[in-house]
Amino acid sequence: MTTPAYDQLRAHARETGVLNAVEALLGWDQETYMPSAGAASRAEQSSALAGIIHERRTDPKLGDLIAACEADSSLMGDEASPEARNVREFRRAYDKKTKLPTSLVAELARVGSQAQEAWKAARAADDFKAFEPWLVKMMDLTRQKAECYGVPAGGELYDALVDDYEPGAKAAEIEAVFTPLGERLSGLVRELLEQGTAPSDAPLTTKIDATRQHAFGMKVIEALGFDTKAGRLDVTTHPFCSGLAPGDTRLTTRYRDEKFTDALYGTMHECGHGLYEQGLPKGEHFGEPLGDSISLGIHESQSRMWENFVGRSREFWEWALPHAHSMLGSGLEKFGVDDMYRATNTVERSYIRVEADEATYNLHVMLRFGLERSLLRGDLAVKDLPGVWNERFEQLLGVPVPDNRRGCLQDVHWSFGLIGYFPTYTLGNLYAAQFWEKINQDIPDLSAQMREGEFAALLSWLREQIHSHGQRFRAGELCERITGKPLSADPLMRHLEGKLRPVYGL
Amino acid sequence: MTTPAYDQLRAHARETGVLNAVEALLGWDQETYMPSAGAASRAEQSSALAGIIHERRTDPKLGDLIAACEADSSLMGDEASPEARNVREFRRAYDKKTKLPTSLVAELARVGSQAQEAWKAARAADDFKAFEPWLVKMMDLTRQKAECYGVPAGGELYDALVDDYEPGAKAAEIEAVFTPLGERLSGLVRELLEQGTAPSDAPLTTKIDATRQHAFGMKVIEALGFDTKAGRLDVTTHPFCSGLAPGDTRLTTRYRDEKFTDALYGTMHECGHGLYEQGLPKGEHFGEPLGDSISLGIHESQSRMWENFVGRSREFWEWALPHAHSMLGSGLEKFGVDDMYRATNTVERSYIRVEADEATYNLHVMLRFGLERSLLRGDLAVKDLPGVWNERFEQLLGVPVPDNRRGCLQDVHWSFGLIGYFPTYTLGNLYAAQFWEKINQDIPDLSAQMREGEFAALLSWLREQIHSHGQRFRAGELCERITGKPLSADPLMRHLEGKLRPVYGL
Repeated sequence: MTTPAYDQLRAHARETGVLNAVEALLGWDQETYMPSAGAASRAEQSSALAGIIHERRTDPKLGDLIAACEADSSLMGDEASPEARNVREFRRAYDKKTKLPTSLVAELARVGSQAQEAWKAARAADDFKAFEPWLVKMMDLTRQKAECYGVPAGGELYDALVDDYEPGAKAAEIEAVFTPLGERLSGLVRELLEQGTAPSDAPLTTKIDATRQHAFGMKVIEALGFDTKAGRLDVTTHPFCSGLAPGDTRLTTRYRDEKFTDALYGTMHECGHGLYEQGLPKGEHFGEPLGDSISLGIHESQSRMWENFVGRSREFWEWALPHAHSMLGSGLEKFGVDDMYRATNTVERSYIRVEADEATYNLHVMLRFGLERSLLRGDLAVKDLPGVWNERFEQLLGVPVPDNRRGCLQDVHWSFGLIGYFPTYTLGNLYAAQFWEKINQDIPDLSAQMREGEFAALLSWLREQIHSHGQRFRAGELCERITGKPLSADPLMRHLEGKLRPVYGL
Repeated sequence: MTTPAYDQLRAHARETGVLNAVEALLGWDQETYMPSAGAASRAEQSSALAGIIHERRTDPKLGDLIAACEADSSLMGDEASPEARNVREFRRAYDKKTKLPTSLVAELARVGSQAQEAWKAARAADDFKAFEPWLVKMMDLTRQKAECYGVPAGGELYDALVDDYEPGAKAAEIEAVFTPLGERLSGLVRELLEQGTAPSDAPLTTKIDATRQHAFGMKVIEALGFDTKAGRLDVTTHPFCSGLAPGDTRLTTRYRDEKFTDALYGTMHECGHGLYEQGLPKGEHFGEPLGDSISLGIHESQSRMWENFVGRSREFWEWALPHAHSMLGSGLEKFGVDDMYRATNTVERSYIRVEADEATYNLHVMLRFGLERSLLRGDLAVKDLPGVWNERFEQLLGVPVPDNRRGCLQDVHWSFGLIGYFPTYTLGNLYAAQFWEKINQDIPDLSAQMREGEFAALLSWLREQIHSHGQRFRAGELCERITGKPLSADPLMRHLEGKLRPVYGL
């Protein structure tokens, strides 16, 4: 089904998408190969392109095309049709872009950039007071941003921000899943660490050089199904995935000589994002909602699934370890599948979110979700943040926070107004677990396939059930469609309990 | 000196320059790291950006700003002032861009792209007849292009095309230098090969792996003065230099295990281009003529100077060889300075321009210059090209052409309408030689410095005399300003005769 207005809308969007891909390349190059003296020029380039893209995204002609499509019952008659959904998401994006006054966008960028610098200095000096006025300003600007978006029907102000990352999600619904998850997870962590026996980390202390790690990482992502003719793997300080254009998806990772599994799981994580990007129907729908990923939560469900549900499974190591032995060497040969499986499934009461394990990670996220929601509401004053952070952290993780550097100053997000972003990390884990149970019903011999390094059936399932739809379904709807149930804490808890208790001898 | 219109003109140009840098990055990435499946997307990206840039370059507002500057005697009063020259070159570029009808530009691109594919097939099959109709079409379209530009005062149609690459140059003037050069060079080549003794190429047959070659190449370009914080060196099929933005100049090279000097001289050549790009006053004048290179001939004078006048000198090898011994190893240690110097200064009667040596290269260029000029004039019919090519080649080089693959089908240029480009290669050699004599007068101990690997005084001279002026002076004017004389064949002949006769024992 198409109409002239719909065709024009798609063509307009594709050209914007093409320019967006160019902007993504500028970002990728900046992190990978750009000479350091090129930074100022790069800022000028990105800014020029961002200006052109912003103009296109807020172009009244675009608004007219969307309105023309909305008024056409031949397109919108079936509200579940791909076309109707495409138009709905075009509208959502256009409204979001046009609702913010240019002055506020500029102010957020300007203050956010200064606040980020202030945060860096404050974190280094462990000086929350120095960051406090900046966080006050950023919370204020972010509140203004949320007010411009407007409170969604039946929701709260925070939802307007979450919607940027997880369209349609509501804080109350997230809370309803996070609360039981938090209680059960805290209990599980206590049980494991107080009653269980921690596995040895000896297999992870083997020193392996970057060249060998890279070759092994490439072997793994090729086995998972990443198309290396349509993508790359490079090295950056902070790993990321940029699905920049049809046929061009770029992953990055980083290698440390020690603990080779850091890079391995980092690579598998980004590969999960990359497989989603490669599976989106960009050939036909590049630049349109139908060619784009649903939400950060769903994106994260893909990265976490390949990293944790595949990569930290015994089956994965049964396939991968012989290759690791021959490709990595360095004394790794003395460790068997059980050693690797157990070592890569340890649980720790650590302070830093980005270093946390599969189980406790979610506790770190929940803490931030609760606090940023209170900060936005005004229930929590910025000056009281460190105290409340430390108190709740100890409740959740069972250890006291030693300082603000390892407490509320550890993450960059809030410094530039990223509020509503944190919950998507745990949503990703929850979606991954819920999908994973269904996948194992649909592919009963998946375990046997994984033992052989066969991931094609798994990838096909993901392509068909998730990737190929683009934004046709929102996250919650997709979850119900696939699993028959709304998102719940149960699958993730079943996964963690089922795996970790035996690892800890319980 | 400035005016509001002049400021606006500069700001407009800078933003176009910034977008142009982005387009250059797309090109660089395509040749270096882009995954192959990204090619179609890349074409879409380049085309979108080219469209935006073309609009800006032909923007009537730009024309108005130029006209406003031209009408302002405070800017234009002194026609040799940087501002007046900047405006003059802005005018030249704007007129060139706006004189071509969009339909002709599109036709040249469309037919050129098809003709290039036809050329590839024809060359592979050694089938001139298959290429002939395409060359007829491209010559016709190129003639139309030249007619749109118009014949320059006191010149011929061909000059309008040369002007794209060598602003202001005239075929008659080029011929006046090329003719004596050709006669003397042909004579020198005959003398060397018939009466002299060719050096041994044994030092060049040492096998050296790419990693070592790369490390050595990096050492050399750093010694020459290339700022690696503001640039890079990567590997591509065809080496190039992209001076894409202030602080960001990218060189590429290619390594073969055999004949390491191919990569070495390729790297030094691109480094010469890169040093020019790094020396242009882009901080202040990026995007303006005053921040841009003068012409392809002057650009080539820089690359050829570092490649041939520095890199193929005995002094260079006196400094470089001990480093080559320790960094390259592989048996190179048994060769001394004299072996390397002689081996890298051999002369050969070869068929392929891009493989030709420093002396015969110019004969290959002159052949093309004469033929393309005749083709454009209509004095030579396309169907007669192979016969005339082969006849003249034998006159110039002294050997018969075995087939068209190694004859008139060897170069890609004509297939996409690059007429008037070839002479700039030899102009580069001529300018380099004429500058080199002056440099040696101005830096009397340059030889001694080079022996120590000291190239700073040489680079400073080039910065001051050439790079820092951007397009303030046209090539011929710059040459007279620096050397006090118009361009002549004498310095290049003195250089070649003075070097090659002793190498050949004459």
